[in-house]
Amino acid sequence: MSVGKQTGKASIFFTDPVYIQSAASVVGSKEGSGPLKEYFDMICEDSMFGEKTWESAESTMQKEAATLAIGKAGLTPHDIRMVFAGDLLAQTIASSFGIAEMGIPFYGLYGACSTMGESLSLGAIAVSAGYGAHILCATSSHFATAEKEFRFPLGYGSQRPLSATWTVTGSGACVIGAKPPRSCSLPGSSPLAHTNGYAAITGITTGKVIDFGFHDSLNMGGCMAPAACDTIHRNLEDFSRSPEDYDAIITGDLGMIGQHILLDLLAEKGTDISSVHQDCGLLIYDNQAQDTHSGGSGCGCAASVLTAWLLPRIASGELKRVLFVPTGALLSKVSFNEGVPVSGIAHGIILEHIPRPCKGGKN
Amino acid sequence: MSVGKQTGKASIFFTDPVYIQSAASVVGSKEGSGPLKEYFDMICEDSMFGEKTWESAESTMQKEAATLAIGKAGLTPHDIRMVFAGDLLAQTIASSFGIAEMGIPFYGLYGACSTMGESLSLGAIAVSAGYGAHILCATSSHFATAEKEFRFPLGYGSQRPLSATWTVTGSGACVIGAKPPRSCSLPGSSPLAHTNGYAAITGITTGKVIDFGFHDSLNMGGCMAPAACDTIHRNLEDFSRSPEDYDAIITGDLGMIGQHILLDLLAEKGTDISSVHQDCGLLIYDNQAQDTHSGGSGCGCAASVLTAWLLPRIASGELKRVLFVPTGALLSKVSFNEGVPVSGIAHGIILEHIPRPCKGGKN
Repeated sequence: MSVGKQTGKASIFFTDPVYIQSAASVVGSKEGSGPLKEYFDMICEDSMFGEKTWESAESTMQKEAATLAIGKAGLTPHDIRMVFAGDLLAQTIASSFGIAEMGIPFYGLYGACSTMGESLSLGAIAVSAGYGAHILCATSSHFATAEKEFRFPLGYGSQRPLSATWTVTGSGACVIGAKPPRSCSLPGSSPLAHTNGYAAITGITTGKVIDFGFHDSLNMGGCMAPAACDTIHRNLEDFSRSPEDYDAIITGDLGMIGQHILLDLLAEKGTDISSVHQDCGLLIYDNQAQDTHSGGSGCGCAASVLTAWLLPRIASGELKRVLFVPTGALLSKVSFNEGVPVSGIAHGIILEHIPRPCKGGKN
Repeated sequence: MSVGKQTGKASIFFTDPVYIQSAASVVGSKEGSGPLKEYFDMICEDSMFGEKTWESAESTMQKEAATLAIGKAGLTPHDIRMVFAGDLLAQTIASSFGIAEMGIPFYGLYGACSTMGESLSLGAIAVSAGYGAHILCATSSHFATAEKEFRFPLGYGSQRPLSATWTVTGSGACVIGAKPPRSCSLPGSSPLAHTNGYAAITGITTGKVIDFGFHDSLNMGGCMAPAACDTIHRNLEDFSRSPEDYDAIITGDLGMIGQHILLDLLAEKGTDISSVHQDCGLLIYDNQAQDTHSGGSGCGCAASVLTAWLLPRIASGELKRVLFVPTGALLSKVSFNEGVPVSGIAHGIILEHIPRPCKGGKN
């Protein structure tokens, strides 16, 4: 059993690493024709995912990502001790009606687009406490369900301001546990069992809700940047680190405008992360060619970039230590229409390369 | 630090008890004129709680319950390591805009009316792992926000079938931690520091999503009873207990009809809990006199009955061991209108009386 310790008021350092035993991503066709197209496990050309409603489509996509992740870990749903999952929809119905059907003990989460950070945080706490050899963490978003939930019916063909982001149709799922992924010489080995080592969670910084008084639901990056700033700043303080101690600090879905605001806000605190900062929303699309304005967003943005692109780079050792910071904007169409500001939250996950003790198998 | 162990696939036994350090309840006037009126900490005659919208009213109510709980534990928000909170509304806005303003690291949850069980479960896991001297677990519901969210505008004056439950306007909050509440001889002592002892969480059974194919959103008890049955049955199996090992098995908000179905379903499995079963939804209102049909429901139903009525009885030793099973119905107005069944989930919390080692102070 792993014993962690609290480093500060909002962070936990896990003495024993919590291993990412497998990861899987499923995305739609727009994401599948973007810069990361070669890394996704599954690209579905049918945005309905074979279902009759957008919501069922998202459920099916999330369930597919979970099924792939469980399979890549060489496991069955019966081996999974508990699930932490959520999505953007009202009453998190994409998770309740998809992944939940697998019959695994289930904790539903709502962290808006920061949900992958929340699920990995709570999963890692449970693993470090010894409560599960295999825990599943998952989330999803779908362009059509999100537009329907938060903005206008797609048929209206509403114009989007340049500050708007494009909700990613995508899902990411990870199986995490106290032991490294199965070595590749075994059947059902995980691609995250790299010749060089593994990817693991070594610490977390829990997000606080930060309200800067933004009211623009079409500038989500602006709404979330203050929360990302707070979490990154507290992470660096709690762990007594400087930005250079990370090979990369990767936010979830700030997009172009949110990235500018984040760098400015951190600069005001005397912190410069510009040399190591990346944003999943800027990685997943070619904004110019794909007409995605400020970038990608949605729970599925951070989750699919993490599972498809980031984790394999950490397992291989190309990146040694990364601060992954999914960002969420807290609003509903009711709160927005009632004039309540859009506050933000961001959960920080420290991901590290753990070298393989003795180099045996091959990837 | 407490070390727990897994008793079965869905349950955890905490070797060291997770103490309820304080608890608080805030309810509306209807609940405040029901059978439990003398036990609530605060009864607010103004159903708007001084706010301009129903949603803000619920936020304020939840924040008030949290503030009371923190105060009764002799603490300030700064002392709280993390919050687990959620509610029934789309994107859990009652929590995001109330309790979240307190500046405490925040995990948003969605478990429908089972949320108090989910927050206590995750809080207890975090405490048992050593990640927080004080963790806040809270939830709320409001009759007017719930009707607006799930059914019809109140102004329609829609008729309610006899199977319908009445959403409780109420909130409950607990501070939990590894140490017992402050003794009553100290300033800021908790009423849960009883002369005889304390109330503590000694185990949990995580709920699974159970879909029995019900489609009636005005018979929530029927939708949730199969999930309650599953959780209670697995709890008894995982801990090798019979119903008589509990002084009470208390479900969240099944109401009259849900209770009948639960007892029938458990009887089919050869388990008779009729002598120890109670339901918060049947305790909080006088159904005949208050015209609440099948009983009370909502996150706030289980949470306010727990904090106001149940926990003091466990702290005093009147009840030695209780299985508390908040029940949730998983639906949204979108999923309901798209014809998706209403599935259920129920999280089991084992609450036990822990005798005071040496009888010193007085309550």
